[in-house]
This record gives sequence, C-alpha cells and structure tokens, in this order.
Amino acid sequence: MRARDLLVPFPTVGLDSPVAEAARLMAERELPGLIVLDERGTPVSILPGTQVLRLAVPRYCQDDPALARVIDEAHADAFVRALGDRTVRQALPERPRELPVTDPDATLLEIGALMARTRSPLVAVLDGGRLLGAVTLSALLKRLA
Amino acid sequence: MRARDLLVPFPTVGLDSPVAEAARLMAERELPGLIVLDERGTPVSILPGTQVLRLAVPRYCQDDPALARVIDEAHADAFVRALGDRTVRQALPERPRELPVTDPDATLLEIGALMARTRSPLVAVLDGGRLLGAVTLSALLKRLA
Repeated sequence: MRARDLLVPFPTVGLDSPVAEAARLMAERELPGLIVLDERGTPVSILPGTQVLRLAVPRYCQDDPALARVIDEAHADAFVRALGDRTVRQALPERPRELPVTDPDATLLEIGALMARTRSPLVAVLDGGRLLGAVTLSALLKRLA
Repeated sequence: MRARDLLVPFPTVGLDSPVAEAARLMAERELPGLIVLDERGTPVSILPGTQVLRLAVPRYCQDDPALARVIDEAHADAFVRALGDRTVRQALPERPRELPVTDPDATLLEIGALMARTRSPLVAVLDGGRLLGAVTLSALLKRLA
C-alpha cells in the first residue's frame, strides 16, 4: 500500500484566487485543506483547514483573544465581506513551513509521519512536479483502522 | 451568533482508552479530532486528527522520513497491531499545548482565531468545567461562507 493507492483527485486554488472563494470551496466540499498552485500548476502551498482560517481571521484577533471576544457579530460579518478582494497570495505566510508533499511511492507510515509533523490532514502527491492528487487523513485512518 | 449556536454533541475518549480505539472512532465517524476526558469528565486534551496520528506513528518514523520510507507494509501492519495495548494516556505529549477550549459565549471570530492559533479543527465548549459539545472547522466555515 503506497500513496498512489490512496490518492484522490483534489480541487486546487490559484495564488490569485480570492480568499473568500477558497473558504467557500472548503466549506461546501468539506475539504480538510487546500492545495495552492502557482502559474505553472506547481503546488506552492498546501494549507490545512485551520490555516485557511488563519488567512481569514484578522491578525489582531489571532494575537488578542479578548479583542475577538468584544467584536460583535455585525462587525464580524462586515469583516467577512471586506475579505472579498484579498487574494490567497496576499494572505499566505511569507516564510512557508515544510510542505506536506510526497511522491506516489510513499508508504502509509511515511504519509502518517508527514501529516503528524506538518499538522496537515492533507498531503499532496507529486510526480516530478506534476500534481497527481492528495491523500487525506480520513482515507489514511480508514486504511489503518 | 455564538459558540452555543454552533456546537454539536461530540464523542469523547478517556485517558485509559486504547489509542487503537481512538483512531478507529475518528476513522469511522470522520471526526476532525478527539476530546479526551479525565476521570471526572473534564477535558484534559483536545487532539486534532493529525495529533491522534502522532500517537499512532512511532517517534523514530516522525523524526526520520527515510526510515518511514524503507519500512514496508508488512512491518507497518505489525506496528498497528502492536498499538493495541497502548492507551491515550501513555501516548499524550508530556507538556500539553494551549487547549482549544472556549465557553458558550465565544464569538465566531474568537473561535476562528482559536482554531488558527492552536491549529485545531475542533474546539471544545465548556460551561464551568462541564463539556457541552464542540464546534468544528467545517461548521464554522459553513457559517462564514
């Protein structure tokens, strides 16, 4: 059992996609994260769902929970609307961490270790730079259980 | 819109539950993580799915990807079987990180910030130490989208 046997086609977003669209895609299709492609179709970022959220929550609310508490719903709605124009490129962290990317020959143990280390429930599977699909935590656990 | 409006009942495991059972529960019910309770029913840990995986993947494979590559399937299967006796308590990290726990009055922005900061797609909602349920990333994104 290798990555090639567990991978499924996976939707992607571009660097210039709106953050709001990325969040909507995740919500509608119940994805555990997103794969971000550059202009040439190469994955530049694989974002766990919680990090997609990080793109959408203002920095000052992440740093100061008390501030997030006092901002009432009307303001939060206004914020979500204001997100409309921001792109994934603008929202990505400047220094990317280790990408959860592997190749079709990766073993289950290898994929599990990669997910645990990068805290990503999603691993992109590449074959020489070309995206073949993704292995999800859910698919891996089903196979192990 | 507050945490109380988004929370759903959520299955829990005990400190003395087998890790294998915790992994099976997550796989079967497609949960984004697990809530671990102590003997008095108080949450002691809220584990994102990737960290449940961390309980199940041997330390040496997490540290050395090359080693995870060369261990073939037969060995991996043997490892999963060997997990049978290990409990959640034995597998938990010694120094817990910030717990993704909040109260029923938390705003959507506050829950989002907490998920982003703790990298947990799951936030437990407590009312004076009593577990009311959990808010999932999926439910939050659906509300924001």
